[in-house]
Amino acid sequence: MLKIIPLGGLGEIGLNMMVIEYGDTGIIIDAGLMFPEDYMLGIDIVIPSMDYIIQSDARISAVFLTHAHEDHIGALPYLLKELRIPVYGTPFTLGVAKNKVEEHGLFDVEYIEVFPGKPVHIGPFEMGFIRVSHSTVDGVGITVKTPEGMLIHTGDFKIGHGGNEAMMTDVNSFARCGAEGVLALMSDSTNVETEGYTMSDQSVADSLQSVCEESKGRIIVALFASNVARIQQIVNIAERRKSKLIFSGRSLEMTVEIAKRLGFLSVPDGMEIDVKDVDHYPPRQIVMLTTGSQGEPMSALARISTGSHKHIRIEKDDTVILSSKIIPGNEKPISNIINSLYKLGANVVYERTSSVHVSGHAYQEELKMMIRLTNPEFFIPIHGEYRHLVHHARLAQSAGINREKIILAENGQIISFENRKGRIVGRVPTGRVLVDGKGVGDVGRSVLKERQMLSEDGLVVVTIVFDEETGIIMYGPEIVSRGFVFWTATGHLIDDAQCVILEVIEEVGLDIPNRIEIIRSKIQKALRQYFNFTIKRRPIIVPVIMEL
Amino acid sequence: MLKIIPLGGLGEIGLNMMVIEYGDTGIIIDAGLMFPEDYMLGIDIVIPSMDYIIQSDARISAVFLTHAHEDHIGALPYLLKELRIPVYGTPFTLGVAKNKVEEHGLFDVEYIEVFPGKPVHIGPFEMGFIRVSHSTVDGVGITVKTPEGMLIHTGDFKIGHGGNEAMMTDVNSFARCGAEGVLALMSDSTNVETEGYTMSDQSVADSLQSVCEESKGRIIVALFASNVARIQQIVNIAERRKSKLIFSGRSLEMTVEIAKRLGFLSVPDGMEIDVKDVDHYPPRQIVMLTTGSQGEPMSALARISTGSHKHIRIEKDDTVILSSKIIPGNEKPISNIINSLYKLGANVVYERTSSVHVSGHAYQEELKMMIRLTNPEFFIPIHGEYRHLVHHARLAQSAGINREKIILAENGQIISFENRKGRIVGRVPTGRVLVDGKGVGDVGRSVLKERQMLSEDGLVVVTIVFDEETGIIMYGPEIVSRGFVFWTATGHLIDDAQCVILEVIEEVGLDIPNRIEIIRSKIQKALRQYFNFTIKRRPIIVPVIMEL
Repeated sequence: MLKIIPLGGLGEIGLNMMVIEYGDTGIIIDAGLMFPEDYMLGIDIVIPSMDYIIQSDARISAVFLTHAHEDHIGALPYLLKELRIPVYGTPFTLGVAKNKVEEHGLFDVEYIEVFPGKPVHIGPFEMGFIRVSHSTVDGVGITVKTPEGMLIHTGDFKIGHGGNEAMMTDVNSFARCGAEGVLALMSDSTNVETEGYTMSDQSVADSLQSVCEESKGRIIVALFASNVARIQQIVNIAERRKSKLIFSGRSLEMTVEIAKRLGFLSVPDGMEIDVKDVDHYPPRQIVMLTTGSQGEPMSALARISTGSHKHIRIEKDDTVILSSKIIPGNEKPISNIINSLYKLGANVVYERTSSVHVSGHAYQEELKMMIRLTNPEFFIPIHGEYRHLVHHARLAQSAGINREKIILAENGQIISFENRKGRIVGRVPTGRVLVDGKGVGDVGRSVLKERQMLSEDGLVVVTIVFDEETGIIMYGPEIVSRGFVFWTATGHLIDDAQCVILEVIEEVGLDIPNRIEIIRSKIQKALRQYFNFTIKRRPIIVPVIMEL
Repeated sequence: MLKIIPLGGLGEIGLNMMVIEYGDTGIIIDAGLMFPEDYMLGIDIVIPSMDYIIQSDARISAVFLTHAHEDHIGALPYLLKELRIPVYGTPFTLGVAKNKVEEHGLFDVEYIEVFPGKPVHIGPFEMGFIRVSHSTVDGVGITVKTPEGMLIHTGDFKIGHGGNEAMMTDVNSFARCGAEGVLALMSDSTNVETEGYTMSDQSVADSLQSVCEESKGRIIVALFASNVARIQQIVNIAERRKSKLIFSGRSLEMTVEIAKRLGFLSVPDGMEIDVKDVDHYPPRQIVMLTTGSQGEPMSALARISTGSHKHIRIEKDDTVILSSKIIPGNEKPISNIINSLYKLGANVVYERTSSVHVSGHAYQEELKMMIRLTNPEFFIPIHGEYRHLVHHARLAQSAGINREKIILAENGQIISFENRKGRIVGRVPTGRVLVDGKGVGDVGRSVLKERQMLSEDGLVVVTIVFDEETGIIMYGPEIVSRGFVFWTATGHLIDDAQCVILEVIEEVGLDIPNRIEIIRSKIQKALRQYFNFTIKRRPIIVPVIMEL
């Protein structure tokens, strides 16, 4: 029996990870992270639970990566800590992944390069790789030939004509699979809500070119570090402009280094300069590429916008281009940067006002194209929230897939294929693991709930020491607060709270059993009521009460 | 000298408030709030600082309201607490405003109804009112005839043809002002980044109608309570469908009551039923209107989506329509509701997939239309972040306004007009006041900073009692944490932290002056380092250290 078990990405954007098993052999496709949701206060990243992988009866022999984005490789170090298996991927993807894994101190990992058109055999599986176009380079869709038939996992893709061959989706290979016979297509649902086709990368290049032509000063372009094709477009513009190039930002410099080494990016000799030397050239001769397009407060772009960058000061004729998607949730910090740049006198160009960015995920017509090309018997929407999966299922139906052959699955469900019959046969443990600093999984619901309460109304610590023998107060009540109220504004609030506490203590007799426990809980209750009544806030109350 | 002093809304979306003075008379247009930005943890609302209004030499005689939205009337109770002046507005606007003011316990306020075409005289000012179309009813733009010339303040508007007269912008009256001569136009910049014209309200009605026609079950429409025209559209659909109507949500019920009383909304007799009786009717005969379209967790819609609503259970043929804008920052909670509704089997229709909503703010071509109609000598973009104001200034230039006659002002700047010369002549105190519970202005930067730190890594309280005479430890070190780490996960972390504390205490001699102070600061430093090293988190450390 062939089993497909999504562990992440079917129910959210990000966290993409899937196990495919036949008999006692298993492989994994992708090991992605997700950035925390708003309520996950203080959390750095989210990874899929590895519980199933560790417990699985099948021997998991390898992990295959589709492309070099965090939502597909970001959980790789955590996977490799649990299970030291070889990592397969195209050269660029492995270059980035290796870097990331080594940052976690893992060095004895086997990396195996794969190439489109060159299959790899793992037990009963023949893994093949088909070039897809996406917002990074060297991405592939993965075909898995199994005794039950061929599976196709598109990875993240759009159709993308234009650019060189390494940038275009290999529609012919997908069509050949279709001709051969495809058991099931698993396809990227991210942009299923958007009608039509994605704009071509060439029209983005044209927009960038015309924006740059109008600019008389320096040009600063903020983009995602992994968007190598976009970087090449800017390099080309800079070359035509006879400008010098500055790459600023650690992740950008890392990507550029890998992409140049592997031939995905070509920068003419002598064009790159160090940001320190920016003032040695006239403004018109400066093109700077940087990260920070999502408003990250410590990024070079943020520092430039607040006038606190060490080397770059915005002048009147400068142009700043945000050549990237504004990810929902980041609007406000991005908007703040745009406003600040305008105030400094720069011209600012962004997605909302110019066509300086295009998505890397297929729109509706492209998604239908993938279905038509591969002509699968079964269709499984992947990579999306539940609403995206539902819409993709509907779209597949409109593209001719039989309703009964569309499998709308969620993370953890086991999709089985046997004798060309596909169905959901069970469920494995799955979940999201929160990573906070070095802690993996030690922050859960209760800690998040406390952080939520702390973030809204702060906390009040009440300290009292009683004499163990007489029961009278030796120290306190002392009140310390954090994040609650600016204390000079309402000194009386704290004084009155002390009176409330003293009243509570008086009410509780001296000789009552569990006196300290009772006082503790009564103080919490009384202060909660008091603060709610006087100032309508609900700080966490921490009573520290001792008998000595 | 005529002075225009924006106190809010020129530098942000929301917080709209403006003072207009001539000689010793002043009036205010709007008193709006802003919803808190992400970093304003625990804050309920933000209002403009009233400092200038309180200190102004001019006698502020009245406040005029353009329309009934929170970002134009939400700070009114706070204004009236400082300055008990009469409130002018159209009947619907006053109806909503009065409700809001009385919720704050203010009852002795004078409300004066105004009507389009009926001017009001206040000292040197003749105030006029021109009907504008917006996403609530009874909105007006305000004309202010002054000895220096006529000002026009558009309020929030779009051109909006269609609907009845009370819903359309009175383009003829604006054109008459243009013919009479306009000194300065102050116009709404909210949607200046969007090309073209807003879609008509009729096409929204058509979309809603066709979505409803397809639905075989109950129809639940979530919208903004103040969008009376949209409510009427749904009522009409329900009537044609021969359905019963349920209004659910306090603010919605309040608006409906006011709108019906004033004739802005007409609901056939016998159509409304109580939500308790929903099961007495077949699903096809139920149309429910509710709030919660922004994903508010306590709303009826949120409860319906989680299956925890007292009376409404989603069934397979039900249709839920989110007929409202998805406000940036709310994507995630809204998306969660949509996903949950899909899982319950409902069909869900929203802005991203159907034309079931249109903005209430003019797009570029409409903004140009307003400029062309009123043909002002000066142009002042209002209602927007700085980037919107910059774009609106550019747009005005493209619509024929002389560059020198465009005044790009910010909150607090004094724009003066004298002998048809307009310029910025100074600055008054301005700012944002944070309202948290009953506290107005008592949460500032330092408290927010503490809340931020608490929200990210929580807090650790360390209690130690020393014997005053011997200096030895009588109690502790006791460690209590909140929002830091799930304690069973890392009990040893706390044990080891106690050892760190004991080492610190040992290092500090017994007879050192300020021993307690030194121990306190050394413990903070040592624990910060220890937690950063072991778990890479930075909780706030609160040492409670006593000598008894």
